Amino acid sequence: MTGDLSIHAIRPDEFERVWPIFRAVIENGDTYSYPPDMDIETARQLWTTPPARTFVAERNHEVLGCYLLKPNQPGLGNHVANAGYMVSPAARGEGLASAMCTHSLDEARRAGFTAMQFNFVVSTNTVAIGLWQRHGFDIVGRVPGAFRHAQFGPTDLVVMHRML
Amino acid sequence: MTGDLSIHAIRPDEFERVWPIFRAVIENGDTYSYPPDMDIETARQLWTTPPARTFVAERNHEVLGCYLLKPNQPGLGNHVANAGYMVSPAARGEGLASAMCTHSLDEARRAGFTAMQFNFVVSTNTVAIGLWQRHGFDIVGRVPGAFRHAQFGPTDLVVMHRML
Repeated sequence: MTGDLSIHAIRPDEFERVWPIFRAVIENGDTYSYPPDMDIETARQLWTTPPARTFVAERNHEVLGCYLLKPNQPGLGNHVANAGYMVSPAARGEGLASAMCTHSLDEARRAGFTAMQFNFVVSTNTVAIGLWQRHGFDIVGRVPGAFRHAQFGPTDLVVMHRML
Repeated sequence: MTGDLSIHAIRPDEFERVWPIFRAVIENGDTYSYPPDMDIETARQLWTTPPARTFVAERNHEVLGCYLLKPNQPGLGNHVANAGYMVSPAARGEGLASAMCTHSLDEARRAGFTAMQFNFVVSTNTVAIGLWQRHGFDIVGRVPGAFRHAQFGPTDLVVMHRML
């Protein structure tokens, strides 16, 4: 835990640095709908093709977390940002998700977004939902059974939103 | 109105047939978030790249409407279908949207989907919302100001869902 946390954008060709975390998170099949066996090139394309940008949180040159920031929709909905966060299984409980959320809200404001929306938060992920609520997000929707949770089967997704 | 309505899938290289309708609908900036000046190749890619499929509704070889059918998410959310419908401005009020919705629900069931979700229904489009409700959809979410309506400015979007 010594050393300062640095959060910054990476280039597409640096995506290998986040891939171990990305793969570990999607393999669990409990928080993201990405196919658990998705390959790195598909992930790289989704997370780094403009206007999408990937950020990393690192300490002592070790990547501990990453997040995606992009417009939630093109065109007439592109004032609303969308973000997704991943934390290394080895670095849970250190406040990384919270630090990355704060960073993403600032980045989104800087980029001119006026709101942020999460479309697909897994309802059983109550730790994340509570965290996003403390960061100003409201639950604005709930879709029944829209996620096939690896452990729990059909599971609701919630939509969360806040103005910036 | 003479002649039977035929609703069927088209190939990507037939997308020119729906483009006049597609362009007319997005130009209005009141129902879809696509950039009003989006070009045909971007539209073709979004609507016809597998697993997305485009269907047309035609009568006497004239295309009067079209719809998109695809998984709403990849991977662990791909049991939920997503669809979007467009009707030629010249063919409004003839029940085309309703006919295409019924067709899409059948197609979605045939393809193995177990639910359908609309993520971004413009809240001022009350005719469409009422129609989807009559087709079994419920409003399961509402996102404030997420659509920049060409006439009304920031406008809510609603999320609609039904099981299949």
